[in-house]
Order: sequence, then structure tokens, then C-alpha cells
Amino acid sequence: MKKLNTTPISGMQELLPEKQIIFDDIKNKIEETYKSHGFQKIETPTIDRSEILFAKAGGDTEKQIYKVVKTAETAEDADQALRFDHTVPLARYVVEHESSLNFPFRVTQIGKNFRGERAQKGRFREFYQLDIDVVGRETLPIAYDAEVIATLYDALKSFLKPKMLIRVSNRKILSGLIEAQNLQEKSAQLFSIIDHAEKVSPEKTAEALDEIGLNQDQKDLMNSFMSIKGPRAEVIEKLAALNIENETTKQGIKELDEVLKLLDAQDAEAIGDMLIVRGLDYYTGTVFETFLPDYQKLGSICSGGRYENLARNYTDQNFPGVGGSIGLTRLFSVLDENNLLSNETEDGKPAVALEKPIDIAIVPISENENEYSLKLAKLLRTKGFSTDTILTDKKLGAKLTHAAKIAKFGIVIGENEAKTSELKIKNFETGEEKPLSSLNS
Amino acid sequence: MKKLNTTPISGMQELLPEKQIIFDDIKNKIEETYKSHGFQKIETPTIDRSEILFAKAGGDTEKQIYKVVKTAETAEDADQALRFDHTVPLARYVVEHESSLNFPFRVTQIGKNFRGERAQKGRFREFYQLDIDVVGRETLPIAYDAEVIATLYDALKSFLKPKMLIRVSNRKILSGLIEAQNLQEKSAQLFSIIDHAEKVSPEKTAEALDEIGLNQDQKDLMNSFMSIKGPRAEVIEKLAALNIENETTKQGIKELDEVLKLLDAQDAEAIGDMLIVRGLDYYTGTVFETFLPDYQKLGSICSGGRYENLARNYTDQNFPGVGGSIGLTRLFSVLDENNLLSNETEDGKPAVALEKPIDIAIVPISENENEYSLKLAKLLRTKGFSTDTILTDKKLGAKLTHAAKIAKFGIVIGENEAKTSELKIKNFETGEEKPLSSLNS
Repeated sequence: MKKLNTTPISGMQELLPEKQIIFDDIKNKIEETYKSHGFQKIETPTIDRSEILFAKAGGDTEKQIYKVVKTAETAEDADQALRFDHTVPLARYVVEHESSLNFPFRVTQIGKNFRGERAQKGRFREFYQLDIDVVGRETLPIAYDAEVIATLYDALKSFLKPKMLIRVSNRKILSGLIEAQNLQEKSAQLFSIIDHAEKVSPEKTAEALDEIGLNQDQKDLMNSFMSIKGPRAEVIEKLAALNIENETTKQGIKELDEVLKLLDAQDAEAIGDMLIVRGLDYYTGTVFETFLPDYQKLGSICSGGRYENLARNYTDQNFPGVGGSIGLTRLFSVLDENNLLSNETEDGKPAVALEKPIDIAIVPISENENEYSLKLAKLLRTKGFSTDTILTDKKLGAKLTHAAKIAKFGIVIGENEAKTSELKIKNFETGEEKPLSSLNS
Repeated sequence: MKKLNTTPISGMQELLPEKQIIFDDIKNKIEETYKSHGFQKIETPTIDRSEILFAKAGGDTEKQIYKVVKTAETAEDADQALRFDHTVPLARYVVEHESSLNFPFRVTQIGKNFRGERAQKGRFREFYQLDIDVVGRETLPIAYDAEVIATLYDALKSFLKPKMLIRVSNRKILSGLIEAQNLQEKSAQLFSIIDHAEKVSPEKTAEALDEIGLNQDQKDLMNSFMSIKGPRAEVIEKLAALNIENETTKQGIKELDEVLKLLDAQDAEAIGDMLIVRGLDYYTGTVFETFLPDYQKLGSICSGGRYENLARNYTDQNFPGVGGSIGLTRLFSVLDENNLLSNETEDGKPAVALEKPIDIAIVPISENENEYSLKLAKLLRTKGFSTDTILTDKKLGAKLTHAAKIAKFGIVIGENEAKTSELKIKNFETGEEKPLSSLNS
């Protein structure tokens, strides 16, 4: 019989148990932080109607949506596809369950999304996203923008040692500037040029500004604008000094000021930075990206922003929101590649759990000791120890080798131990053996 | 603009935040129990190659597999589909990563599977399964069958109050009986008749046995066999009394005896029951189902068994396994329908978390108190309280209403509180208000 190939499809992350523990530990820390900030978890279906998913997608995303083929038994259903982010299902959820929700609705979604992208290093087709959003009804104060950023910062801090930097801007500032200069027709191009400015040389950026036909004053203004970056007071002062006579810009500066002030109040390391625009995204106000300055090549590890109307496809009611996301599958992969998973945090605890997964392995010498071993395991579990029992009919040496690979401690049960209950526990790390009573000390 | 319909596709579970908390609480309890028994978590991709998924499926399952349409950027890939269980990806995983795993490999998979079934009450197209398996290399002692059942029993016990009963059999007993009676050609039909015996009248079963051409002695034997049910000693004695001269049957009885003995040793409520055969499944030895005797209509809430060779499609090596699964999406749904989610456990704790999701809501009276409120929230979080801040510009009364809906306690911050830090905390349940210092008492 021809045997099937067992490698996973390319673009899929499949971890060994030792790595999976670390992944789960990070995921739990992020989730706990989200909850500690009052975010409530929901889960939306992975499969949704195509009309819902394609309504928002657009651009490259649309080409990357996995459609699902109807089965014989779902033939009458509408066309369906796999969700590619958490925001689209969230909008549907909020409108569907509106009357049962409390607004502002602090919500978190933690699950897998899917994009059928071309396979390439560091890109995944199936990936965890850990989102938070605050959704308001009709209005949502700017303070929530800071709250979302502060929550994501705390979540990253919960497992990452390296210094972090959140770079914040507000798209209203640039939108107003464009309006004031009568450059509305070039708006998309300008946002795109600034979005790419860090990835290309200054000459390239200058060329691009030439190409879309900016005059010298406008180019100077854009260059001044793009160079503004730093702590709150400095950034707000420099923005004011640009003297842009436009209400949208003024509103954007005021919002940015407020967000940075509230982030400072919570000791989140944030700066204002006009190079952050989030490209062609649908954000309308606050935008942010997060970097590890000592590992700049990792790129932004967490980003998001404010959107004026979450649910325009479903309702005439207005649901403004602000949200952000940690793309954990990619982040985990780059942290692993850069050997950052075993770093120690400032408080001396390892950044991630690298311990053996199981506390105690019980090794019965023969199957006559199985019953006693299972009872002992039950007792140890009630005391909070994860406990494995090695029930194979291999030789004792082989069983102990297996036990030492998976567990921190081992207890051998022979005829005598089962009779007298005088047990010894061995620390596989140090080789030290002690009477079991010492377990509690 | 035409607005889109926001209801989820039928067959999808979408919970409100209050219910999601209960669901997650149960899921966590099961996962913790699995881990306490030494099971290591892995995650396999949701999307796998069709040749892998269809290789095992067969029968109805094959008709229910959701295929995935290639996108423009994955056009060169092999045909793909969504996994319909955890066992197929596990087999692929074990063969793929064999050299890095420790056998017997205690493994748990917790995630969503997909079946495009006809929509009907209590059936889900996207559903959580919480599987455990022990996979051996070449051999796997029968003691692991008991270990898997005991682990699942403990996992269910961790959140379910009602009495449980695990009904265990071993397919070798019936296989050998069929061999001894020279009824091999009718094997599939006999397994199916017994599998359905509880769902139809005794007359129907008798008719079915007639129809496939059993003689009176054979019918009497089958009826005696099917009636055997009870504690270990009784069941083993009655099986022996059938006097079936067949080595497979004898081996099956011996294995059942051992499994029930080890379950008794761990106080799992299990009986032998010859009506349990797991239909046309691929199990080859131990089979089991779990019921709540006081809620018989819920059907089996957890089942599984032993399979001789997990990975025959991938390798000539033999990987025997034993496993079982809790289908949590369906179980949660029937528990909810039967109002079993709020029951109290024997130790007096609620069976499930029904508390408000958030500990403390901080309510600044105006946005002047936002900064102080965010700092206070940060402090409370470091003390372990999940803390929301109500940052809306609504009136105080509306903010307090919101706070009382989502949180157990509230703290109002006005100008004076922000200045003096003399804070009061209100218990929304009792209405009682105390100075904040009492929070720790």
C-alpha cells in the first residue's frame, strides 16, 4: 500500500509538545491580562457566510479568503468561507446580540484565522490572533483608545522581557493636513508613501513625493510632518508649530495628546510618531504599532486603532470601536528563531515556562504494582501534582528513562513499596532521592 | 444600502459573554484534569490535505467533510479540507514527529472540528472536541485503557454534579463469539443490531436477529450475551458461564476484567455492559460510553476505545492506541437546555462559574478623573482583581448601571476622591459600601 506523506501543509505551525507548552503559557498570560482589564471573551464561528466575509475584505485579503465547499448535507446553505480576521465576525456579533450586550462592550476574541497566502517564511495560513476591542453605541470616548493600547502593552509585558515601544499617531492629523493643502485626490498615495517611508531610503520617499506632484513647500511640510516623533509634550508642540489650519487636524492632535497622556499615567512606554499611519487600513483616528527597539527586525508585534463605524454593513446604528491584536503564531515563530523564548524577565522568573510538562512519574516495577500506582497517582493529583504512571511492560531501566524525559520527579513502586507504602521520590534533575514525606517541604 | 443578515450559519454555537465564561470554565477544568494525568497538549492544523482526511473517513463522515477552495495564492497546493476529528491528524502527527516523541505518548488535543451535517437540533457543524489518547510504539499494555477512561471520568467529575456511569465492553468478546458460532459473514450486522438494541424494542431486536438467519440456539446465546451487565465480578462470571470456546473471546474477557479492576481501584463508577459495541467504529478492543443515569436522554456524553493501529496509512510501523473524547459543544448545549449548568457540586461549590465576569468597575465622575482612575485600576490589577474603568461621558447614574451589570464591586472617583484617595467600594449585590481599605479583609 502506498503510504501518505505526513508533513503538514506549508504555512501551518505544528509544534512539538515542549514548544506547545510555551505557546500555551504565553497565550494564557495574554488572555489573563485581557481579562484583568475587564475584557469579556466571546467566540464566533470559524465558518461564516461569504457575503459577510467578502463585504469587508477588499484588496489582497479578498484573494486570500478560503471558501468552503458545501457538502451533500449543507447544499441548501448560502456560500460560506473561513474568517480571515476577528473584526468582521465581531461586527456581525455585536449587531446580532446588541440588546444583550453592555456598551461600551470590552470584548476579546482568541482564536485561529485563515488566509490562503502564498507560502513564505514567517507567514502563516492558519494563525492565532488575540484581539481586544471596545465597541461603543453611537459614541466612544477617546480614553478607550488609551485603554486598549495599555491593555495590549500589559499583555505583552506579561511574557516579554525586551524593552518595548508603542508608536502612536492619529490619522485625523494627516487627513486634515491633506485637506488644508488641497491634496485630497492624492490622499491614498500620501498615506501609502508615509506607510512605506521606513522601508525605503529617504531618496525614494522624496522621489515618490515628487512623482505625485507636490510642490516644494508641500514637500517641506510633509518632511517636517514625517520627522515628528517623541514624547507627548515634544510631539504636541511640534505638531502645533506646523500651524495647520484645519479642524480635523486639531481634533487629531487633541486626541493624540489625550491618548499619550493616559498612557503616560499608566507607565506604558509610548511615543507619538507620525510615521505610523497603518497604510490603507480602515482606521479613522488613533493608530498604533508596537516594536522591540533591540529587535527592530521583528517588525511590529502588535497594532491596531480606532474605527468610526464597525457595523455599517448590517445596520444604520453607529458602533464606533477601537481595537488591537497580537498575532501570536507569527510572534511565537520569530521569538523562537531569535532565541527569545528562554530569556529571563526582570523579576527573575523565566519569560516562558521551559520546565518539563509533568511533575511526577510513577514507575511500577511490574504490572502487579499497577493498582497501587494508580491509587498513589490519584492521591498526588489531589495534592495538585500532575502525575503520569508508566504502565508499560518494559524493563525498569527503560521505564525510568522514559520517566526522566517527561517528568521532574519519579517514584518507583516495587512489591515492597506497595506493601509498606515507604516510598522514595527521585529528583531527575539532581539525581537526589528522598523519602516521599519530604515532598511537602 | 441593503443590510446583511447577522445570524450565524445554522449549526454554529455562538454564546453571549455570560455563557462563554461557563463554557471556558468547563473547558479549562477538563484541560487541567487531562494535564494532571500527564497528558501533553498538541495542536494540529485545522486544514489538512484531502488525501489524508478522506483516507480514513468513509461512510457518512466522508459526505460531511468540508473541502476548502484553493485561493489565487495557494493554487499549486494539494486539495485541502477541514479536519472532522482529532484522530486522523494525530496519526499524521505521530508518524511525522515520531523520533521526537516519548512513547507511550500521552497526548491531548483540544480544538474545533468540522462536519457539514444536515442542520438539526443538538447537532453542530463546528464543535469543540477535547480528546485524550495514549499511543504506544509496537505495544501498549491494557492498563492504559483504564487510565484513559479514569482520566475522562475525573475530567467530567471536575464540573458535573450528577451521578455518572461508565459502561465498558471489549469488542474481542463479541468478535470471538461470532467466530465460535461461524457467523463471520454476519459480523457487521450483529455489531449493528447490538449497537441499536437500546434504541428499539426487544421485539425489533429479536426480529432483526431472525432476519439475518440465526437459529434458536444462536438467538438464545445472543440474548444471554446482550443481557450481561453489572459490576466486574458479576460480569466476568456471567461471561465465563457462556462457555465460549474461542481465544479472542477469552482475551477480551481478560482485558475487560483488567480494565474494570483498575477502574475500581480508582473509584471510577464503571460497569461491564455487553450492549456497548460502538457500532461500526474502528475500535478493536476496549470500548466505552459514559451516561448520566438521572439524565438518560442526554445520551452518551463521552466515549472511546482501543484501536490496534493508528497510522497504517502512513507507515508499516505499528502504533496501537487508546483514546476518548468529550464533545463539549454538544454537551454544553444539552446541559444548558436541561438547566444543569448551575447545579451545585458535592463540595458545595457551584458546578460552573456563574459570577459576574469582572471584579471591580471604577467609575470616574468626569473625564478629569480618568487619569486617577486608570492608575487605581492598574494598582488593583496587580493585586489580582480584574478591573474595568467606565470611561464614557454619560451621567453618573448610567455609568453606575453599566458598572453594576458587569462587575461585582464599584468604586466612584470624583474630584475629592482623586485628591484625597479616600475611596469607598460598593458591593453591587448587597448595596453595602465600605472604605476601600476593607478590600483586603
